[in-house]
Amino acid sequence: MSTIIEVLQKGNVPPHVSQLSEAESIDLSEFIQSIIRGHVVVPRNNRHGALTPVAIGRDTRVKINANIGTSPTNCDYENEIQKLKAAISAGADAVMDLSIAGNSSEFRKRIIEEFDITLGTVPIYDAMIGLDTTDKLNFSHFLRIVEKQAEEGVDFMTIHAGLLSKHLPLIERRTLGVVSRGGAIMAQWMKHQKKESFLYAHFDEILAVANAYDITLSIGDGLRPGCTHDANDAAQFGELEIIGELVQRCRSANVQVMVEGPGHVPLNLIEENIRKEKEICDGAPFYVLGPLVIDYAAGYDHITGAIGGALAGMFGADFLCYVTPAEHLRLPSLEDVHEGVIASKIAAAAADLARKRPDAIARNLEMSKARRRFDWDAQEGLSIDKNKFSRYLEKVGTASPGAKNDLPCTMCGEWCAMKRL
Amino acid sequence: MSTIIEVLQKGNVPPHVSQLSEAESIDLSEFIQSIIRGHVVVPRNNRHGALTPVAIGRDTRVKINANIGTSPTNCDYENEIQKLKAAISAGADAVMDLSIAGNSSEFRKRIIEEFDITLGTVPIYDAMIGLDTTDKLNFSHFLRIVEKQAEEGVDFMTIHAGLLSKHLPLIERRTLGVVSRGGAIMAQWMKHQKKESFLYAHFDEILAVANAYDITLSIGDGLRPGCTHDANDAAQFGELEIIGELVQRCRSANVQVMVEGPGHVPLNLIEENIRKEKEICDGAPFYVLGPLVIDYAAGYDHITGAIGGALAGMFGADFLCYVTPAEHLRLPSLEDVHEGVIASKIAAAAADLARKRPDAIARNLEMSKARRRFDWDAQEGLSIDKNKFSRYLEKVGTASPGAKNDLPCTMCGEWCAMKRL
Repeated sequence: MSTIIEVLQKGNVPPHVSQLSEAESIDLSEFIQSIIRGHVVVPRNNRHGALTPVAIGRDTRVKINANIGTSPTNCDYENEIQKLKAAISAGADAVMDLSIAGNSSEFRKRIIEEFDITLGTVPIYDAMIGLDTTDKLNFSHFLRIVEKQAEEGVDFMTIHAGLLSKHLPLIERRTLGVVSRGGAIMAQWMKHQKKESFLYAHFDEILAVANAYDITLSIGDGLRPGCTHDANDAAQFGELEIIGELVQRCRSANVQVMVEGPGHVPLNLIEENIRKEKEICDGAPFYVLGPLVIDYAAGYDHITGAIGGALAGMFGADFLCYVTPAEHLRLPSLEDVHEGVIASKIAAAAADLARKRPDAIARNLEMSKARRRFDWDAQEGLSIDKNKFSRYLEKVGTASPGAKNDLPCTMCGEWCAMKRL
Repeated sequence: MSTIIEVLQKGNVPPHVSQLSEAESIDLSEFIQSIIRGHVVVPRNNRHGALTPVAIGRDTRVKINANIGTSPTNCDYENEIQKLKAAISAGADAVMDLSIAGNSSEFRKRIIEEFDITLGTVPIYDAMIGLDTTDKLNFSHFLRIVEKQAEEGVDFMTIHAGLLSKHLPLIERRTLGVVSRGGAIMAQWMKHQKKESFLYAHFDEILAVANAYDITLSIGDGLRPGCTHDANDAAQFGELEIIGELVQRCRSANVQVMVEGPGHVPLNLIEENIRKEKEICDGAPFYVLGPLVIDYAAGYDHITGAIGGALAGMFGADFLCYVTPAEHLRLPSLEDVHEGVIASKIAAAAADLARKRPDAIARNLEMSKARRRFDWDAQEGLSIDKNKFSRYLEKVGTASPGAKNDLPCTMCGEWCAMKRL
């Protein structure tokens, strides 16, 4: 088997590449060049049969990811399937299974069989399930997990290979240390073993598996800032330098790669964050978590994340990982997943409009015209959450049979400004 | 009676000015100069006894306003009092009574007697209540309303005096025409009467009342864009030119003035919007509604508004009018008011942090330190909505008596990254 980069380099164009170029309104040859150069990724494990792939990167619509998965105290895979359905129905472009308890393998198999959505994982989690401490962790065990997940059909995998032992002293200077679960596992392992990260040391072996299954690697930011005070610090940018190097190694191996980013970042530092990633990682697609623009809005971090995500997207972030209202407080509920996806989609939509994507301009314009003619059905159809739209809408009075359905809502009633002119 | 500008010009410093300068961490003489020059306003009707005033403008904390008030189909003033309480308890800095039905005068008197929050109105609404059409509207009737509300103790009033008859043809080119209720009333009046706006023609008489009661004028943007497609267009910026002229007339009359702004604006046009206002209106405080960064998220416009408000605040907007999830769909409920205030406060807080206000930095840092030491009580105390924080929080296990309360939450349980290092 060849990776999509190799296939395209040989001049062959798989049908899904043509379809995506059309869906994204990008000229086909330009789109192909973007994939070959690594400015766009199309995560798609070659074992993942019934997948509807998405394109992530330069000039594409900003995509969003929803995290699902168990935790040691909330290990109910049936419930996680419900969350997956909620995420898909709210419009998620991809999901990551972040399970850290129970039989995650069966769960992933079910996702791949029953749903056509792009699936990502963080293999270090599966590698740690069942181990008491990181001391029992080693590369060969990790690689077996990667191979197993590759075989299952996982489309993209987060690998925290940019966090090296030389970064450990930088963590000490931070307010919040390490908040990435994968980053903390690797940092703890390096500290105890007094060795270099096995993910970095054996990166070529990971690349070999990724190449064989055409898995897209997502280089995790183990040192993403966990509070605004730690944003854009020496630890974060130190790791980013190594990530830039890993991106080049992925490209040399014809493996698609994207880069993960923060985290908690004040509004005024988001632009620098994006520009640095794009520069250091040579235009690799940027996958950000949030970013959350203040630290003290737990319960509303879907909103702090939407603010940061919109701005990040405007400046060039390509893929937004959702944040739910439950962030920092509990494993998200079904409702939290829905709220998180919608908030991220709003952020992505705001970025798409700011980047002047024609489809974004068209949808906003169509909605505005429907609003002007009081066409509530058309508005509902265009709205980001049809159910909430119809649940909330309170029109004034009732239209007489056959009359135009142009009643105003109860905000202004007959005082509606649009009714006067 | 003298306005605060006149009092300060004479070298007298009322106690609330010193208190506000301290609360805002602005040097007193600098703060006084900002008020005299019109870069900061402190809305405070000299009849409004038990008011805790707020400062709005340059270098101050970004403030937020919540709109309350009846509409023809939802005219229950008791319910509006409950919304006022919800807005105050969620942290609103000011409220506007936008009632367009019933006895708004009694309502305002009750607000002024029972609450100490800054109160704003749009007198053209009261002027229209009871009139069938705008044709019955005239300046002398309008002025009587202004005088009556001034007597009641209203602190700031929106006056849509910048919308002139010469702007009417520009409206025709728009997708959504006029969406400001006050703007639509004046546009309709000018169209039917074929006369210049009486608000503009008689602006000096309005200034005389404002001066007598030290009312802050808020120059309404009758042509605020109602959809992203209309943002920053000739109509909006045409009106802004006149608003800039009105700001100078207010200053000549020693009347405090701020300027209202949009509305619906794509993310990439917000900076231009703010810079133009600050330039054309010579640094007058800017009071924006949202702005909403996409048009099709009805049901979630508190989020589209928080995204725009945060960015506007970072670029220099001083006062954010909240938007609730009910925007475009119905008069907001009690719960909508709460959600709207919290979302706006998040936007304001994000802007304050981006502007590097020391109090914003401190609160975020304190929260992050509490998070690091798993001090959930301190986190709850610092969080933007203590009730939601405690309702959402699910800690893993129970601390043994006397043990440190350092349990992780159910998101990660014992896999908590901060527990590893």
